[in-house]
Order: sequence, then C-alpha cells, then structure tokens
Amino acid sequence: MERISCIIHYDGTNYSGFQIQPNSVTIQEKIEKALLKIHKGASIRIIASGRTDAGVHAMGQVIHFDSPLTLKEKEWKRAMQTLLPSDILVHHVQKVDATFHSQHHSKSKEYRYFVLNRQDPDIFNRQYVHHVPHTLNIDAMEQACAYIKGTHDFTSFCSMKTTLKGDKVRTVTEATCTKNGDTIEFVFKGNGFLYNMVRILVGTLLNIGKGKYPPIYIKQILEAKDRNKSGATAPAHGLFLWEVTYE
Amino acid sequence: MERISCIIHYDGTNYSGFQIQPNSVTIQEKIEKALLKIHKGASIRIIASGRTDAGVHAMGQVIHFDSPLTLKEKEWKRAMQTLLPSDILVHHVQKVDATFHSQHHSKSKEYRYFVLNRQDPDIFNRQYVHHVPHTLNIDAMEQACAYIKGTHDFTSFCSMKTTLKGDKVRTVTEATCTKNGDTIEFVFKGNGFLYNMVRILVGTLLNIGKGKYPPIYIKQILEAKDRNKSGATAPAHGLFLWEVTYE
Repeated sequence: MERISCIIHYDGTNYSGFQIQPNSVTIQEKIEKALLKIHKGASIRIIASGRTDAGVHAMGQVIHFDSPLTLKEKEWKRAMQTLLPSDILVHHVQKVDATFHSQHHSKSKEYRYFVLNRQDPDIFNRQYVHHVPHTLNIDAMEQACAYIKGTHDFTSFCSMKTTLKGDKVRTVTEATCTKNGDTIEFVFKGNGFLYNMVRILVGTLLNIGKGKYPPIYIKQILEAKDRNKSGATAPAHGLFLWEVTYE
Repeated sequence: MERISCIIHYDGTNYSGFQIQPNSVTIQEKIEKALLKIHKGASIRIIASGRTDAGVHAMGQVIHFDSPLTLKEKEWKRAMQTLLPSDILVHHVQKVDATFHSQHHSKSKEYRYFVLNRQDPDIFNRQYVHHVPHTLNIDAMEQACAYIKGTHDFTSFCSMKTTLKGDKVRTVTEATCTKNGDTIEFVFKGNGFLYNMVRILVGTLLNIGKGKYPPIYIKQILEAKDRNKSGATAPAHGLFLWEVTYE
C-alpha cells in the first residue's frame, strides 16, 4: 500500500459541497469515482483536510488515500485528471509517509474571500466574487480585522446549525482586508475554523464597511458569544479554501 | 419614439448564440423578454451589430431599439439590468439619433481570442480561455499575423456553412498575438468578418505555433481560397466580441 496526497483545485459552483451525501453531487464523490475506475472497480475512500460547503471553491484542498497500485506521482496526476470533470483539478500529487493524515495533521488553514466593490457586476467572474455595489470603508474593515486576530471564543461567528460539542475557542493568526482596483480580498489564517465562521466574519466586516457599526464592535460581538450579534453569512461563492499547512 | 443604443456584455456559455432561434436559449431572446416586461407586454425588437455563435462571449456587443417610453439613460440601464439574468450585463445606455443603426453603421469590429498555454487548465477560467498544453512558438504566430493584416479574399478562413453570396474580400486592420504570463491574446480588428473567420484564423495560427507549417504559409492559404487548406475552427469559448466602432 502507498499513501498518496494531492492538492486539489475545484470550482464549487455546481456541487453540494465537498463531502459525500445522498442525492447530491459532491467533489468527494467525483474524486472517488475517478479512483474507482483507476482501481478497476475497487472503491477507494479519500480523506480531506476538511469539508467545504455548497458553492465554496478550493485552490488548495488537501486529500489523501491509500492505494495498492504503484504509479509514479506524474502518472497519478494524469490518470486522475483524465477522469475528473473540468471543474476539478489535481494540481499536485505526492507520495507521503503512511502516517500522514490530511485532516489530523493540518496545522493551519487559509481562506480567502473576494468582494467586487463597484456599481456593475463582472459577469465573467460572477461565480467567484461576491458583488457589493455599496460604498465600503476599507480602513474601518482593516481596523476591525485587528480585533479578529488572536485567540478568542468565536461562538458569535459560528452557525447555530453546528453540531460541534467542544469549545469554540480558535486562534486566528492572520486577518486582513486589502483592496486592489475594484476587488477586496479578505484573508483569514488560523488553526481551525468553525461552521460558516469565515462567511459570518465577512458578513460582519461588510456591515462595518457600510458604517452600520464601528470596528471595535467586533470586540463586543466576540464577548457576547451570541450569533445574533454578528452579521449575515456572506454568500458561499466568494469563498476559497486557499491553503492548508502541515508540520 | 426614442432610439436607445446599449453596450452589452455577455457570457455566451449557456446560450445558443446571440440571435433568436426556435427551441434555443439566446441572448436576443433574454434581452427582448426584459424589454417586453418594461413595455408591459408590448414586444420590442432589438438589432445588434451582428450575431455571435453559440458559446462566444461579448465585452462590447452593441444593440439598438426604439421605444415609446421616456426613461433616462440611467433608468434604462437599471430597468433592464434588474430583469436580465446574471450572465448578461447592460454596460452602457445611450440615447441616439433615429438614424443610428447598430448593424449598418458599424465601421469596424474587434475580436479577441484567449489561449491558456500551460500544462494545467485554469478551472476558474475554463469557459473563457482555450487551453493548449503544447509548446507554442509565439514569434512564429506573430509573424503569421503580419500576413493576415491587410485586404484579402478570406475564402480559406470562412466556414463552408456560410450562406453569404457576395465576395469574401475583407480588410483586417489589426492582427496581433501577444503573450502575458501563460495567456496568449489574439486581437483582430477589421471592417467585417466572415462566418467563423476569427476561430479559423486562430486554429491556423495555433498550427503555426505548434510548428506544423511556417508563418508564410498563411499567404499560400489565402491564395488557395480553399477552406481545406486552413486549420481547424478553434473552440468558441475563447472568443470575445470586444468592441464595435462607429463613425
């Protein structure tokens, strides 16, 4: 048996998220179907760094699986790519130690969220940026990002649909907001993210950008530990799982 | 009656081309449906600078129509945009003289064709660039472009499915090929283009880029006046109607 790890890109537009579920088209299903063919009908289970929601994209999802085949890395990439649909790409394949685990060993994750801030939408990019025509105060959102950074209880930024039983304390090591031309890019890096956390953070930051409340209000939201205090969940299509880092 | 002219952007991916046809979804149909609603059930016929094929995009399609309504340009833009699907955008609205005609008065048209020249496709841009993983000789394609420029009989670069009865002499005022990063951009500007002309030009240029024949072979293809001498029709999804110029 060899353990194979892959970096995967996907356009989440036409999927019900990463994880296999009945009566839905998922990324995991498409990848496992490709591996089923490569293994001539023997099913192979893949494990990812984590799931992504319906409509969310990935530039750096990491998966691993075990195979009895002895293909070279290049051959794995080609074999999988030939069988995958055009909205999923195997960017990189690497043989890894049998102890490597894409989910358990991830040290940090980076998410990026893109907002197009101008009057007209960009129809050619409409599935990858959230279009916000209102004037946004970038300085205020930048300042608010500073309050997000650090170790906090992020209960206020976690969907109430979460099934998580443990605590909601997470460490965000990077939280930034920068504008290039008409595009605002939010970057969040941390040791773990709660259900919908990035999208609720962005929804809240956009409220601050619109002047609904001042940057320091982030502190109050965190302290409240109440999902009702934060903003709406920003739409899925602006969000990318950008990179997963391992030890 | 007021004559209204609009610059339209569209993503051609999900359409059977610009022009209305039975049992197909077309851009014209979507725009006329929006105008039908604005005119409370009175049908308005639009005229475009020209049709585009299934899957071809536009950054600068120009249309015009006549309306008994007296909306401001800004109001037209908003009213139409509200009713159009997310892959069609009214970029600009202008009231024009009643003698203006978007098709008859166009002086020149510019088309751009995008090729992604690297091993891996770009899944997020897959519907807007033609992916060519082979090594391409940019210099050779640039040289070949010089033979395209000028006034020629373009019979060899016209689809045999054309219904055109007149001559196939056209003037190409600009033909260029430039590479930025992994992206090759072909620009063609001229007083008129035949059916599939740009896509056959690109297909032929790509053959030259792959070294199938030398740049000067363009001259021989033109002289032959034979569609069988030129290359395959490049796929529709890399092509954009970029700009239409009027006197």
